[in-house]
Amino acid sequence: MAYTLAEIAARLGGRVLGNAEVEIARVATLEQAGSGDISFLANSKYRSRLGQTRAGALILSDADADETDLPRIVTGNPYAYFAKVSALLNPTPEAVPGVHPHAVIGQGAQIDPTASIAAMAVIGQGVVIGAHSIVGEGCFVGDHVKIGRGVRLYPRVVVYHDCVLGDNLIAHSGAVIGADGFGFAMENGCWIKIPQIGRVVIGKDVEIGANTTIDRGALDDTVIEEGVKLDNQIQIAHGVKIGAHTAIAGCVGIAGSTTIGKRCQIGGSAGILGHLEIADDVTIASFTLIGKSIREAGSYAAIYPFGRTEEWRRNAVHLRHLDEMNRRIKRLEQSKQESIKDQN
Amino acid sequence: MAYTLAEIAARLGGRVLGNAEVEIARVATLEQAGSGDISFLANSKYRSRLGQTRAGALILSDADADETDLPRIVTGNPYAYFAKVSALLNPTPEAVPGVHPHAVIGQGAQIDPTASIAAMAVIGQGVVIGAHSIVGEGCFVGDHVKIGRGVRLYPRVVVYHDCVLGDNLIAHSGAVIGADGFGFAMENGCWIKIPQIGRVVIGKDVEIGANTTIDRGALDDTVIEEGVKLDNQIQIAHGVKIGAHTAIAGCVGIAGSTTIGKRCQIGGSAGILGHLEIADDVTIASFTLIGKSIREAGSYAAIYPFGRTEEWRRNAVHLRHLDEMNRRIKRLEQSKQESIKDQN
Amino acid sequence: MAYTLAEIAARLGGRVLGNAEVEIARVATLEQAGSGDISFLANSKYRSRLGQTRAGALILSDADADETDLPRIVTGNPYAYFAKVSALLNPTPEAVPGVHPHAVIGQGAQIDPTASIAAMAVIGQGVVIGAHSIVGEGCFVGDHVKIGRGVRLYPRVVVYHDCVLGDNLIAHSGAVIGADGFGFAMENGCWIKIPQIGRVVIGKDVEIGANTTIDRGALDDTVIEEGVKLDNQIQIAHGVKIGAHTAIAGCVGIAGSTTIGKRCQIGGSAGILGHLEIADDVTIASFTLIGKSIREAGSYAAIYPFGRTEEWRRNAVHLRHLDEMNRRIKRLEQSKQESIKDQN
Repeated sequence: MAYTLAEIAARLGGRVLGNAEVEIARVATLEQAGSGDISFLANSKYRSRLGQTRAGALILSDADADETDLPRIVTGNPYAYFAKVSALLNPTPEAVPGVHPHAVIGQGAQIDPTASIAAMAVIGQGVVIGAHSIVGEGCFVGDHVKIGRGVRLYPRVVVYHDCVLGDNLIAHSGAVIGADGFGFAMENGCWIKIPQIGRVVIGKDVEIGANTTIDRGALDDTVIEEGVKLDNQIQIAHGVKIGAHTAIAGCVGIAGSTTIGKRCQIGGSAGILGHLEIADDVTIASFTLIGKSIREAGSYAAIYPFGRTEEWRRNAVHLRHLDEMNRRIKRLEQSKQESIKDQN
Repeated sequence: MAYTLAEIAARLGGRVLGNAEVEIARVATLEQAGSGDISFLANSKYRSRLGQTRAGALILSDADADETDLPRIVTGNPYAYFAKVSALLNPTPEAVPGVHPHAVIGQGAQIDPTASIAAMAVIGQGVVIGAHSIVGEGCFVGDHVKIGRGVRLYPRVVVYHDCVLGDNLIAHSGAVIGADGFGFAMENGCWIKIPQIGRVVIGKDVEIGANTTIDRGALDDTVIEEGVKLDNQIQIAHGVKIGAHTAIAGCVGIAGSTTIGKRCQIGGSAGILGHLEIADDVTIASFTLIGKSIREAGSYAAIYPFGRTEEWRRNAVHLRHLDEMNRRIKRLEQSKQESIKDQN
Repeated sequence: MAYTLAEIAARLGGRVLGNAEVEIARVATLEQAGSGDISFLANSKYRSRLGQTRAGALILSDADADETDLPRIVTGNPYAYFAKVSALLNPTPEAVPGVHPHAVIGQGAQIDPTASIAAMAVIGQGVVIGAHSIVGEGCFVGDHVKIGRGVRLYPRVVVYHDCVLGDNLIAHSGAVIGADGFGFAMENGCWIKIPQIGRVVIGKDVEIGANTTIDRGALDDTVIEEGVKLDNQIQIAHGVKIGAHTAIAGCVGIAGSTTIGKRCQIGGSAGILGHLEIADDVTIASFTLIGKSIREAGSYAAIYPFGRTEEWRRNAVHLRHLDEMNRRIKRLEQSKQESIKDQN
């Protein structure tokens, strides 16, 4: 499969400069690209790299349009354009429609004839699966789950009963959607389980990474709005709500009943305590614990700076004495004040 | 399914005030509840919310018994009572006893006739499964595993060979019990695997969250005592022992051979290093690394407070100079001492 | 199965002292060992424990050879020797060669006749599986994956299409190899998926823990070199390269395109940001975030020391005022300087 620059631009827009008949079969980095490959420059800061690339063609911003003589497509957003070219050149393999003979389908399940249910998948009773959706090998879909159109569950995804998955959801292997939230009442020294009777409701165009877990609500639903992107090994507790187009990196944990705004970006291994509200357009650094609600958009962090272990140790011991340190400074300031007074 | 307050109190105890014949079909939050729903107030601090609820009935403590005219059940522990009412109104669906035709059962397995083995499950040789236990879709149970009564393994749980699961265990999807611990000896620049020949032994009434992993012991067993509750994505290394009724939130990691006491509570994403001992009744904050044994009950923490990124950056640079800062304060104090001496 | 000390030494080397005809059937800790068991002392610091052990035989270093009269094997590296004795006494059970009738095999798959494909496994098209490899129950192996010799995939491992697994790989249950990396371009407020077209390529003698995830490359491959050992619940993002014989403890997250050197050791729950380079022979402490490249071998850390919660709180508030504290110290120093000048 190959396309000329002219064909690409006809489909995806952009302005072709140089030879529009160059054929492109693959995408590659500037360093790895050869003839037949198209590469891109998203950040003008790295403009000097254009000189060394052997790419057959490039995707460039207007600002960089004249920095090379190579055949090129000029566009306002080279990285997004590159994403689209790559999708054009690397289409997701079509799955064979229908139910594999080694799958098990529950009573009353309504599976669109264009949908594909792979080997070893188990579909519960009353499940609804929309057009062109794919349930991968060994997936489990609980009773009465609703799956939209164009959904792709990779092998071994589990969806507990009654959950709702929006159109175009991609869920990677090992993701678990709708397991019980962690809710217990203490009585006489023992934990009593609180039944988790809410659902997980996921909007359209969401992606969920491998081994990520999203718990069902205790009473109200856990809600993931449209366009949310979740990386691998994220833990989302019961009753959390995540606003549209928020992106969360790997290993983040979000505790129960917290609401996260739209268009937030949360760095890897960050954590957010329960019952908090995070405003729209908040960025949280990796490895940062958010322990209070954030009412204003902006960028927040709490990272302990790393160093050589011996240096770290020398400094870290004082963290246990910061309050005392502060009092010592205060005493010095007071004694200075007094000595100034004395001198007057 | 609906119960009158009188019927509920007859089963679960408590004192009914107001109309005992009100029928209750569902549990709900104070905000969401309508007629036919029962809600609860666990904390008198939120007493003012009682005025606005449209709940058909309430579960209240003695202290709040007179704060409303709504039909109500008065009890010493409203949250635990609510848990029991919810369990009454939301019984776990019964699984069909017997072995699904798409399951595979190993030689010599002893499966109680009341137990249920779902589609795509694989049961190893010599496995014993007790009465009313459920092995979910696609679970794998290794050779010679012993599973007690009333156990529920949700779909895609894996239990390696020889492990022992106590009565009433609930394990959520993706949990892996009994994988090899991380044990290697270094020889000539290469790691040599230490065979992991211990088991995982789990007491009764334990719950294990989705994608949580509990490694088998290297030599001695890994032990989870009765009543322990583990949230999702927890990692428990080889040879760890967790005391009865301890509760651990999501994403916690516990390194090898550490012993944790009874009735501890460990916050999300906390970590505990290996070969430590944590006393009974210890509470550990989220995001806290415990690097030494804790001999006394109490509450422990180590969280870096978050702030605006620019503010955090301005302050965090000084963490690398705390020791120097301390020496500067000391010098100032000494010079003050000397100047006092001079003045005398 | 039992071996005399003489037989063990004949196979594994080492020098026998005392009765070489003692029969050994099991390995055990010094505390647990009885007659018939062999134990070991790796660290002379614990030499005093030798007096109390009831072990039938011991593995000791030259330095400790004369500290006991028990039958013993003396060797340069007792811990590595112990690993080998344990492997001798606890051989991994052989799997039955061939394809289980409840497995599904794709067109054109080449499976060595000595390999074993367990029940409920699904093997994609064009997959190649080498001699004596084992694909466990419910594993999924995507199209065109290449699996070397002597590989063991425990139940429910997922390998996405086109990945390459080296000889002797051990992957534990729930591991996901080759899921899409987390790559999106922002356009008009929506995230556009970047197709992830690289592979995961894994060298020989690697071990991967339960529920660990290794994403495929966005453009270039994700590479795990030979002898790397990964614990449970590790997240390795797209395009990461991990050097030979590096060992990584549980719950670590490594962000995209980072390169880690050879023979590194990374503690539990540590994190490494993206696009960094970590030199060979670097040790990183648990719970440490590495935010910049590390060019020199050595040991690095960034751990907030824990304490009683009230003590921690008293001290931690000052982290938000360290810059101010520093300025206060500076002012005191300046005023001291001025007062010294004044005095002159």
